[in-house]
This record gives sequence, structure tokens and C-alpha cells, in this order.
Amino acid sequence: MRIGFQGIRGAYSELALYRHFGRSVESVGFGSFEEVFEALADRRVDFGFVPVENTIAGTVVENYDLLLSQECRIIAEAFMKIRHTLLAPHGASIGQIRAAWSHPHALKQCREFLRQHRIEAVPKYDTAGAARMIADENRPDCAAIASELCAEIYGLDILAKDIHSNKTNTTRFLVVARHDNLPEKIVCEKTSLVFITRHYPGALVDCLKIFQKYALNLTKLESRPIPENPWEYVFYTDFDSGTDTGPARNALAELRETARFVKLLGSYPKGS
Amino acid sequence: MRIGFQGIRGAYSELALYRHFGRSVESVGFGSFEEVFEALADRRVDFGFVPVENTIAGTVVENYDLLLSQECRIIAEAFMKIRHTLLAPHGASIGQIRAAWSHPHALKQCREFLRQHRIEAVPKYDTAGAARMIADENRPDCAAIASELCAEIYGLDILAKDIHSNKTNTTRFLVVARHDNLPEKIVCEKTSLVFITRHYPGALVDCLKIFQKYALNLTKLESRPIPENPWEYVFYTDFDSGTDTGPARNALAELRETARFVKLLGSYPKGS
Repeated sequence: MRIGFQGIRGAYSELALYRHFGRSVESVGFGSFEEVFEALADRRVDFGFVPVENTIAGTVVENYDLLLSQECRIIAEAFMKIRHTLLAPHGASIGQIRAAWSHPHALKQCREFLRQHRIEAVPKYDTAGAARMIADENRPDCAAIASELCAEIYGLDILAKDIHSNKTNTTRFLVVARHDNLPEKIVCEKTSLVFITRHYPGALVDCLKIFQKYALNLTKLESRPIPENPWEYVFYTDFDSGTDTGPARNALAELRETARFVKLLGSYPKGS
Repeated sequence: MRIGFQGIRGAYSELALYRHFGRSVESVGFGSFEEVFEALADRRVDFGFVPVENTIAGTVVENYDLLLSQECRIIAEAFMKIRHTLLAPHGASIGQIRAAWSHPHALKQCREFLRQHRIEAVPKYDTAGAARMIADENRPDCAAIASELCAEIYGLDILAKDIHSNKTNTTRFLVVARHDNLPEKIVCEKTSLVFITRHYPGALVDCLKIFQKYALNLTKLESRPIPENPWEYVFYTDFDSGTDTGPARNALAELRETARFVKLLGSYPKGS
């Protein structure tokens, strides 16, 4: 089974992908999220695995736009805490390290640790790329900040674990599939959809009343106004039920009457 | 007048700040958004100027969290298109440039331009920092991708303008003030607030019905569920009216009855 993700080997997305699917799958890295969705459509991968929300950075707008424009379906979600690791060539000790290479976000999240150890922060394109470079250059005074998966992939030693300050930094990932390759049996506990409201005052409330009527708890609700059309909104919504229950079926049918546009993105098991 | 922003001199935030306030104000850069709010509270600056939304990256969650937790008020908003510029030491020509230094986001947005000109992308902490380093190193084969304000500040030549692919990349900024330093006359056309719904099914709809009842058009609506408490949401909302009108006053009074918590962030003129 081939799973597409954005990044190079050892990226946090790949680590989350292995945690979700197990290590027997083949992970395939792409340069952009768009390329992941293209590879899925072209059958170069069986499933795509993309981040959609992070507790620090918020919603990954680009992936929601792709979910809206592409023909595919969400079949699962997965949550992963982002835990940064200091990685160096074999034999290096933490006292020797003068510089740490990583993505600016990761460097920022580890600022306290770097200050304590008097290590200079050196920005690179991404965390896994920094780990690969550290392995290539093999200097005893330089380390990378990346996932612990990078230790294994690039043959580096782990000098320190959990070196980030914010211990709750969590990313939510989605597994996306083609319509002709959906799993046969899927436990539907949660549903994601996008809808666009009609163009009149209160259109929004009329749509949300439907979820209230059928007691569907919204676990995500994010809207973007359509600037040219007052009262119109694109809504990204998750609710706590599969589409195979009576209330959810009725709610979706009524939403299709009330909203200008509804796209069901998928119904899938709750992730942990 | 002293205005705080996050970044070093020449950052896009500083350019937007000058466009909004004019060049006679004193801009003061800080290392983090939190420090901007601290400096505002401590009277080291008169106003803060922070980004809250970007068309590519979405909401700046950190600044909304600060608006919620800090004692301050929004008094204005400003929109700015992000236009990337290629900057090099005096006398360099574009044919000589082999490497461009910048923040990974900016490099990504200019990927097409760099490919066409066979320029290597070199990641740095931020755009303005890259421009400062280019000026310090003074090498004829290296350029920075940054705001055109950096040309003036660091004495660099503009080799190319508008080198980004996405021409609609726009950031929305807010001006925040202390309660004891609010402008005397402020045109109230738009209002921002945060509220938390009560803990029962439909609590959300009950809150939104109030805006419908008073025909207040929501130009922003973003919610974050409170994971431990189903049916409870934190809502970030803007509507198209000042708080000095009858409908807005009534709506706010009813919202205070219906929601568990309401914080008015400010009422201010519409930005352009």
C-alpha cells in the first residue's frame, strides 16, 4: 500500500503516517500538498495523508481548499503530538554542539532549550531536510532539530528528546481516498462537510439550526465570508456522528435544501 | 507616536504600519507578538500593530489568543497585499545573482521566478533579516527576497518587483490600544468580539440567531470547540456595524444573556 505525504523522508507527516498505518506501508513524499492530491487522483498512491489543523498554527487552509476542489473522500483522521528531538552524527555529545539546524517554527519552539545549552539556531527549509544535511556534513558541532524518525532514517544519534517548550503542540491529519478505492467496512463516528450558505440575512443560522434540530454536535466550525457576497459563507464543519444514522441523513437532506452548495467530505472513525 | 510590531526593520508588518499611520510615527520591532502586547501594556508603545489573517496562511491564532487574554482594544484594521521584491547590493545585476535568501514561505511564493532565473533558494529566519544580511555581506551574487521598504532601510537595489506567483496574497492587520489611550473620535463601522457558548445542544445557534434578528452581517466567524466540553465553542466574530447603533447595542445585550462569556474586542472603521 502506497501513502502520499508532503515532505521528505523523516518529516513529521511521515512519522504520523507510520503511527496510523503501521510500518509495512510504503510512504511517498511530495513537494507540495497539491502534488499529494494529484498523485492520489493519478493512482500513483493509494491514499493521501495531510495535516489540516495544528494547535499553534491553526487551520491548514490550503488542504481544506484542496478537499473542496478535488474529487476524494476522507476515510480517517489521526492526531499526533509534535515532539522535537536533537539529532547529531554518531559520537557527538551535547556539550560539543554549537549550532542547531531546523525549520524556523521548530527553532522557535525549542528556543528555551537552545538558550540553556548556548546553541545557535540556524534556519533551514524543513526539519527532515536539516537532519539529512547534518548526516551528509557529519560535523561534530552541528545538530538538527527534527522527528526521532530522522535518527533511524539518516543514521543520527538522539542527543535530547522533547526539547520543545509547548508540550501540547498537536497536529490533526486526514487520510484521503479516491471514490473508487474506499475501504469496504468503515466505522462512521464523525463526518466532515463543506457548505456555502445562500445569499440572505440569517442564511447561516438557518443552516446551523438543522444541526441543532437533530442534536448533532459540531466539533469543528470554521467559516470564510465570500467578500463579494455579503451574508454568504463557506463553512467547514465536522459533527460527531456518521452519515449512516437517521438524524445525520435527515440533517444532510435538509441542509441540501437550505444551503446553496453542500459537499460531503467523508464519514470516518474518530481518531485518537 | 510609537507603534509596536513583530519583526525587525523592513518587515512586511512595518511596511503595512507605515502605510496605515504614515512615515512620521516611530515603529518599534519586537521578537514576538506577546512582546508587542506587553510593550503596549507597559506604555513602551502607544499602539500595537499585528497581523490576524492572511489569505494563504489563514488566521494567526496566536494574536487572537492574545486579544482574548490581554486588556486592550482594537481601534482600526488595515489590509496589505504582500508583494515580494528581489534586493541586492548596489551595482549587482539580475544575471549575476546565484542565490536568494529569505523566509521559507517567501521562497515558496517566488519559486517560479527563482526557477526561471536559475537562482537557488536559501532559507533564512525572516525576510527583513535576510535583506540585512545581504547588505552586511555585500556579495554581488546573492540577493534577498523581502519588502521594498528593505531597499531603503538597508541601502539595497531593487532588481525585480512583484516576483511572487500568487498575486492575491493579502494580510489583515489590527491596531490595538490600551483602554486609557483610545482615540477620542472613532468611526465605528465594524465590530470584533469573542464569545463562549453555554454548554447545551443548540447553544451556538441561539447565539447566532441574535445576529440574524438584528440583521448584523458577520464578516468573520471562526470557532474553536472546547474539546473537554461538547457543545461549547469559543467564537471569533466580526460584524458589519459599530456598537453605537441600536441594533448592535441590543444584540450585544442579548448575547451577554445567552452566551457564557462575551468580550468586545473593539469597534472601528472599515479598513481598505
